[in-house]
Amino acid sequence: MKKLTLEEIDQQRVRPDEYDSVERFPIYVLLDNIRSLHNVGSIFRSADAARVSRLYLCGITGVPPRPEIEKTALGATETVPWEYRKDAAAVLDELRDQNCRIVALEHTDRSVAHRKARYDFPCCLVIGNEVWGVQEELLEKTDLAVEIPMYGSKHSLNVSVAFGVAMDQILSQFIDRHHQ
Amino acid sequence: MKKLTLEEIDQQRVRPDEYDSVERFPIYVLLDNIRSLHNVGSIFRSADAARVSRLYLCGITGVPPRPEIEKTALGATETVPWEYRKDAAAVLDELRDQNCRIVALEHTDRSVAHRKARYDFPCCLVIGNEVWGVQEELLEKTDLAVEIPMYGSKHSLNVSVAFGVAMDQILSQFIDRHHQ
Repeated sequence: MKKLTLEEIDQQRVRPDEYDSVERFPIYVLLDNIRSLHNVGSIFRSADAARVSRLYLCGITGVPPRPEIEKTALGATETVPWEYRKDAAAVLDELRDQNCRIVALEHTDRSVAHRKARYDFPCCLVIGNEVWGVQEELLEKTDLAVEIPMYGSKHSLNVSVAFGVAMDQILSQFIDRHHQ
Repeated sequence: MKKLTLEEIDQQRVRPDEYDSVERFPIYVLLDNIRSLHNVGSIFRSADAARVSRLYLCGITGVPPRPEIEKTALGATETVPWEYRKDAAAVLDELRDQNCRIVALEHTDRSVAHRKARYDFPCCLVIGNEVWGVQEELLEKTDLAVEIPMYGSKHSLNVSVAFGVAMDQILSQFIDRHHQ
């Protein structure tokens, strides 16, 4: 097999000048109190790939422009619609009023394995702090909690990896149901 | 719903003293020329969660102990069997001799979407450099190349995120076929 050049890969991508006009998937992302700017940047990059509608940066989550975010975002802060909102709970209330389903990535007594869950759209995936996770106040506003099964000795994946894994599942359900 | 405490999550985990004796999944990982020590550490953490059989660190890939690896591995360098092998091609030859299927995460003219591919076991997932990807010399030894569909403006995900997404799919196929 032959490796594709960057130019060949580019031809399969949305061009930057087209990116503003393409239809976005009805998926929102809320980052609550993410401490690491590298994680924020990496999540921007994955959110670009998933063509999400909007990324909400809440609480202590750092916002662009910051060199540490750009280091891992690689320009995705320019392509993903985002806004800073201090109060994550208020954002979830607004999204719920618009009939958006709220999905938390968190270990709870009712969490479902991320691949077994059914996601309805529009939905907002809520990601919490690297150490303490999603706040109880936000879990109360959640329709569904999902967790990634862990077969090792650790509690969790890195938060940007966990985001990528959960988003991959959510996105594939959307595409399987609506674009095929 | 009620968030689980770390102690409650711990009860569902493999205990560190048990971890040496549990059966590992027949999945190997080869990192070839990964430049970022943070990515190496993050992949260790995900490899722990996926209970892989062995992680091969090849070429310029950094090896433990290094503070930058530990920062993201969070102890997983102690739980994942690993070894440094300068020559990645020699490792793949050995694995192929043991009937291990070689899967590259790479954009090639024959790549299959990671969720559409069928993975046979044992298999080894090959991850290449952050910029130039998997070397041609290694692609020649590959049974299957997979890629993660990208719907945005960027070429790729962060390498540790891409590893997590691909591994999630491989692991779920193994568990669906062999453990249910």
